Amino acid sequence: MNHGFYFDNAATTRLHPAALEAMMPYFADAYANPSSIYRPAQQVRRAIDEARKTVAEAIHAKPEEIFFTSGGTEADNWALKGMVKQGGHLITTSIEHHGIFHVAEFLKATQGAEVTYLPVDDTGMVNPAGLEKAIRPDTSLVSIMLANNEVGSIQPIRQLAAIAHAKGVPFHTDAVQAVGHIPVYVDELGVDMLSLSSHKFNGPKGTGALYVKKGTKLTPSLHGGAQERNRRAGTENVAGIIGMARALEISMQEMPKESSRITELRNRLIDEITSTIPHSYLNGPQDNRLPGNVNISFRFIEGEAILIHLDMHGFQASTGSACSSLSLSPSHVLMAMNRGHELTNGAIRFSLGIDNTASHITSLVATLQSSVAKIRSLSPLYDDYLKTQK
Amino acid sequence: MNHGFYFDNAATTRLHPAALEAMMPYFADAYANPSSIYRPAQQVRRAIDEARKTVAEAIHAKPEEIFFTSGGTEADNWALKGMVKQGGHLITTSIEHHGIFHVAEFLKATQGAEVTYLPVDDTGMVNPAGLEKAIRPDTSLVSIMLANNEVGSIQPIRQLAAIAHAKGVPFHTDAVQAVGHIPVYVDELGVDMLSLSSHKFNGPKGTGALYVKKGTKLTPSLHGGAQERNRRAGTENVAGIIGMARALEISMQEMPKESSRITELRNRLIDEITSTIPHSYLNGPQDNRLPGNVNISFRFIEGEAILIHLDMHGFQASTGSACSSLSLSPSHVLMAMNRGHELTNGAIRFSLGIDNTASHITSLVATLQSSVAKIRSLSPLYDDYLKTQK
Repeated sequence: MNHGFYFDNAATTRLHPAALEAMMPYFADAYANPSSIYRPAQQVRRAIDEARKTVAEAIHAKPEEIFFTSGGTEADNWALKGMVKQGGHLITTSIEHHGIFHVAEFLKATQGAEVTYLPVDDTGMVNPAGLEKAIRPDTSLVSIMLANNEVGSIQPIRQLAAIAHAKGVPFHTDAVQAVGHIPVYVDELGVDMLSLSSHKFNGPKGTGALYVKKGTKLTPSLHGGAQERNRRAGTENVAGIIGMARALEISMQEMPKESSRITELRNRLIDEITSTIPHSYLNGPQDNRLPGNVNISFRFIEGEAILIHLDMHGFQASTGSACSSLSLSPSHVLMAMNRGHELTNGAIRFSLGIDNTASHITSLVATLQSSVAKIRSLSPLYDDYLKTQK
Repeated sequence: MNHGFYFDNAATTRLHPAALEAMMPYFADAYANPSSIYRPAQQVRRAIDEARKTVAEAIHAKPEEIFFTSGGTEADNWALKGMVKQGGHLITTSIEHHGIFHVAEFLKATQGAEVTYLPVDDTGMVNPAGLEKAIRPDTSLVSIMLANNEVGSIQPIRQLAAIAHAKGVPFHTDAVQAVGHIPVYVDELGVDMLSLSSHKFNGPKGTGALYVKKGTKLTPSLHGGAQERNRRAGTENVAGIIGMARALEISMQEMPKESSRITELRNRLIDEITSTIPHSYLNGPQDNRLPGNVNISFRFIEGEAILIHLDMHGFQASTGSACSSLSLSPSHVLMAMNRGHELTNGAIRFSLGIDNTASHITSLVATLQSSVAKIRSLSPLYDDYLKTQK
């Protein structure tokens, strides 16, 4: 498959060859169940312990605070469902990933929970003063994402968590887009729970983790065997866990170099698009944003139409979250940022990763210029606009 | 790792090389998120569709009735938590895997559910008349395992499901130990939900499925993206799903041959142990049992002591479920079968799989003979017994 022009690293990433290499022994060779007591099983158990240590170190947690899950969505579901009891009050934001958003809706619909959705400003930032005001005596949990998956805005989690804690409320952050890409340290952030997902940092799909600070009272996720210290039952996805740890280790090692390399590519992509394609606008903050995130609205046309053009030229990008691409509703994130229907429908996310180079940017911009021009030439909206300009 | 004498296939199995081969393209090459709309993603989505069809065909279900999960435990948790509402009544058995047993306990403790545990006879069989009597007007679900993981007893699921349905109660079966080993067809069994787990039939760990009969009202498992038709959110474990489907396909092809080959080995192992080692007794039914399951109690000694001996000689077996090996409590299955403490503590499960051969059986029996003799020579219980015989 040609992923030479892959600009959708926020949807998922290529598995790092070194991560795959680390996984290989655990498929058909060291395949013992880590819960068994014989020696071949102990070897597998030790490998999982090592992986847990690696993941813990990457985010400055203790190994016993890391609980492996089947991914970021499971971690998010667990944090919310395990903490917000019948009739409790949850505070979250209007720009969360569906892994939080739809859980909140579920808790509201079926558990009698009350949910406050904090608004964001035009660049997708939460106002800490708004959180302060929203906290009630019956608030069970605050859950605010660290970095937004569509527009890359990075929230002031440390400050937000401190506000929640001052009122005795536990704090969860969905850090799925952030871990492996920017420094994410639970001790500095002061959060009680944090979700991460392996396939967002070149690890395998089907693996993630929930960090749960020692002493946090959280209902177990899956009941059954004694795995994950009785909090998440089920035979471990051994190879997945080992691949995730290796991928995270590599991401942390490469981060100082990769982060500035990708930030530079990002800025170049933003500049070249917005300066050469008329009526194109950056969504999200200028600076306070993920290294790899570019989100641009092209007026007068639909993002989907551009995507199809790009796909035909071998470029992969998205209109928003991959998880919601099957539904046709407009991005709730851009709507919450007051971008309006036209800019929301004309938005495209380009998310950069380890494989992208400067020459990819050049090719992408050239293709975008011609695609946007072509699509606009067929757009009644653009036609109307041109008439007003005459 | 030397798994040459691996007799713990009920705990987990070696990944089939053909399954691994099927998985390989989906790690670092066809890595697109199947929910994305561009062509490389469509290719991945089609591969998942194919896998779903394969799994569905293997159990005579429709593809849209298969929901991929992170394993059997998640499938079991989902079936029970998604069906037994606040204050509902659940009927299950006293010999379920912890993936059901501990969920039932959780529902009882926190959701006000009432749980009826059906007893079993001395061979681990449920009495259908007992189910009939246990059903109440407020019963939400009956969940009875197809084949027991410790003693291999195969329940009359078709008959049990019919009894539940006659009173309008939905029926779930944990078929984790059965699928891939004996014919399991949802249309013949007449069940509404069925759990299966990939790594029990030489597929990868971290993948499983819940069959949900069309029209069954089940609360979604994970909320978030639109994956699995909005019932189980989260980016799919693509490689895992593909590996599971391939492994199941192979298991179904090989079943007619493998099932009788393994049954023969099983019978030989049971005969040779019980005829050559005094005071050894088969647990579970003689015939109505999984092809690969052997469970023997050795009087006067602890199963753990035998396991350690076997491990030193390169044989892997278990005292019961791998998932509960970290807890030291006696097997709830053998206790429910009225085997008493001595026989329960002296039990070992040997579970046979694709790699076991007749020569393994010969070696195992020889090692067992000397190990059991040696351990008994140090056993005060055995000493006491010998004195009574003088």
